[in-house]
Amino acid sequence: MITLLRIEASARMTRSLSRALSNDFFETWQSERPNDQVIIRDVGLNPPTAISENWIAGVFSDEESLTLVQREEVALSDILIGELIQSDIIVIATPMYNYGMPAALKAWFDQVIRINKTFSFDLARGDQPIEPIQNGKTLVILSASGEGGFSQGGVNVIKNHLHPHILECSKLLGVEKSYCVTIEYQEFNDERHSESVKSAHASIAPLVASIKKEL
Amino acid sequence: MITLLRIEASARMTRSLSRALSNDFFETWQSERPNDQVIIRDVGLNPPTAISENWIAGVFSDEESLTLVQREEVALSDILIGELIQSDIIVIATPMYNYGMPAALKAWFDQVIRINKTFSFDLARGDQPIEPIQNGKTLVILSASGEGGFSQGGVNVIKNHLHPHILECSKLLGVEKSYCVTIEYQEFNDERHSESVKSAHASIAPLVASIKKEL
Repeated sequence: MITLLRIEASARMTRSLSRALSNDFFETWQSERPNDQVIIRDVGLNPPTAISENWIAGVFSDEESLTLVQREEVALSDILIGELIQSDIIVIATPMYNYGMPAALKAWFDQVIRINKTFSFDLARGDQPIEPIQNGKTLVILSASGEGGFSQGGVNVIKNHLHPHILECSKLLGVEKSYCVTIEYQEFNDERHSESVKSAHASIAPLVASIKKEL
Repeated sequence: MITLLRIEASARMTRSLSRALSNDFFETWQSERPNDQVIIRDVGLNPPTAISENWIAGVFSDEESLTLVQREEVALSDILIGELIQSDIIVIATPMYNYGMPAALKAWFDQVIRINKTFSFDLARGDQPIEPIQNGKTLVILSASGEGGFSQGGVNVIKNHLHPHILECSKLLGVEKSYCVTIEYQEFNDERHSESVKSAHASIAPLVASIKKEL
């Protein structure tokens, strides 16, 4: 039995393309491995708070010396990190908003990337002082965007601050392997879009199969 | 007289390097042009809410047909866009958090990049259907980061999802000219950092002078 962390980042509960992809992924997964645990964290519906000055002071203090306010500010971070640590596979279903993560998803990353919890920092390591504490996790990004051409070789790849940014942040969480399924051109609603939806959904079953094979 | 929009994005009220840069910028500016209007929007202290399904439904509806909930959801967006539209210069003082914008700053962009308010969308324009409605604005980014090498030619330029992302989003707000002052290597607290602080602050007066000349 393994644990999957399912993160939903779309603000839309209805007609969300990333949520539909995620439904597809988890139906396929659970029909084949019904005993795996799935933790659902819906940041689209319940956005985590942005970090505050008390949060920063709190995470740089010893747990025993936290003030009440600091304790309250880091409480959510503790919960989110707890969910993360026990997960083997992290599935992030997200739209691209304004060429990057929805603010709610960035708020999640800002809460879980935390010194001495998910990463360590040591200047003795020279110019690369940061190392993740966890390891061996797999990431699956299921995304949808209004425009297109954001993938390698695409016309808008330079504008893409969603996938490479998520991948960069995820390294600090112990992610060592990642997969990406994208739907593009939603706002154009043309053939490129319908092809993109079709091929994204068609890729879910082979993706599940290939991740399962590596377990 | 012109109007400047001063956006503060650091979660820190004390010992913030980006806020110190911003203080320096505005003291210099106001000592030379005391009659300009300055609008302060502190998203670090008061993070805007992440957009919701009602927000999305609201911005795609005619103003008359909004439900009460939708009206409430877009009210903050109306205020933030009002501040933006009347501004000639936008100054964004921000730390880099986890290689990108703080969630609070992304929440601001997600609130102000809004169809038929800050951009128009027309498929008749072909593959570039989006155009900003405003124009002629100037952007100043004043940033601070824990690591370094994020500028053109630096070792970590590929990890930088702060400056290029802000620039991409800002085009949709009518920004046509931009300047950037960065402090780096805060976490290393070494000579590179102290040099970076010194040179960033030294560049403020010439920057103000060159922006003023173009007015």
